[in-house]
Amino acid sequence: MSTANARPGEIALDFDPSERATDAGLVFIGRIRTPWDERSDCPRNTREALERGAIATLEFDDAYRQGLTGLENTTHLHVLYWMHQSRRDLIVQCPNHSNGAKGVFALRSPVRPNPIALAVAEVVGMDLTEGRILVRGLDCLDGTPLLDIKPYFSGIDSRPDAKVGWMDKK
Amino acid sequence: MSTANARPGEIALDFDPSERATDAGLVFIGRIRTPWDERSDCPRNTREALERGAIATLEFDDAYRQGLTGLENTTHLHVLYWMHQSRRDLIVQCPNHSNGAKGVFALRSPVRPNPIALAVAEVVGMDLTEGRILVRGLDCLDGTPLLDIKPYFSGIDSRPDAKVGWMDKK
Repeated sequence: MSTANARPGEIALDFDPSERATDAGLVFIGRIRTPWDERSDCPRNTREALERGAIATLEFDDAYRQGLTGLENTTHLHVLYWMHQSRRDLIVQCPNHSNGAKGVFALRSPVRPNPIALAVAEVVGMDLTEGRILVRGLDCLDGTPLLDIKPYFSGIDSRPDAKVGWMDKK
Repeated sequence: MSTANARPGEIALDFDPSERATDAGLVFIGRIRTPWDERSDCPRNTREALERGAIATLEFDDAYRQGLTGLENTTHLHVLYWMHQSRRDLIVQCPNHSNGAKGVFALRSPVRPNPIALAVAEVVGMDLTEGRILVRGLDCLDGTPLLDIKPYFSGIDSRPDAKVGWMDKK
């Protein structure tokens, strides 16, 4: 295992997944507009994004706008977006808040083999004809590529009793 | 807009996103083992998968197993997987349960421009050294490619009051 360009305790793969990322291909269906042009301005995570209350706009390319039909009166969305500036090879990481080294799959870090970010966003407005949805709860840079949105079904998606081992134990 | 090979009321894009899917590339990090070899055997959705109680196994390729460090005692995961058999061009669809035509982004259909499926899975066992996690709540074919898992944080991911317009109104 390589530790190139990693912090103490972090581990990089001995290959870069971005150089082998040919198993399947993605299309960007639009962009996310946020108030943040630099990573240092972004909220640290979606929780902080919600606390700040900032509004982001999901902008859908023309070709995909018909896909928004029927979204009226939907209150929450899963938003999948592409963290285009993230490296993909750090398999063990030491984020500031996590109290030690953790595997990438125990974290919500944008740095991961497939840098697909997932957020539950609150809908605050929509113009489906223009292909725009206003949401709260996104933490990404302005211009971040949009991959997909899915309606949030409370019956299958809401799990108030869920626990994350490293966070919930003391 | 084309309506090639669509049901009445459905609309296909006039291009196939799979032929333009060069904006970003994915690596498969493992496979999902389920009891279902044919689409006709699969549960219709993750709700039915939970009701049936069937166990699926997330199998991580060797290279990525260190990424599981720290997942112990985590009860729920977001699982992202690739619906490799799904067409990608149907932008308006008429699923049996949805009472008329809906845009793909108002549905959880596997047929979408980027066929990334998302399920909240309940962890029922894990062997992190061997790269295996047993879960309930997946509805996919045996051998489905795995893209990512993320810990489910109830504080940001659980929204019991969420409503989907077309489903919750009468």
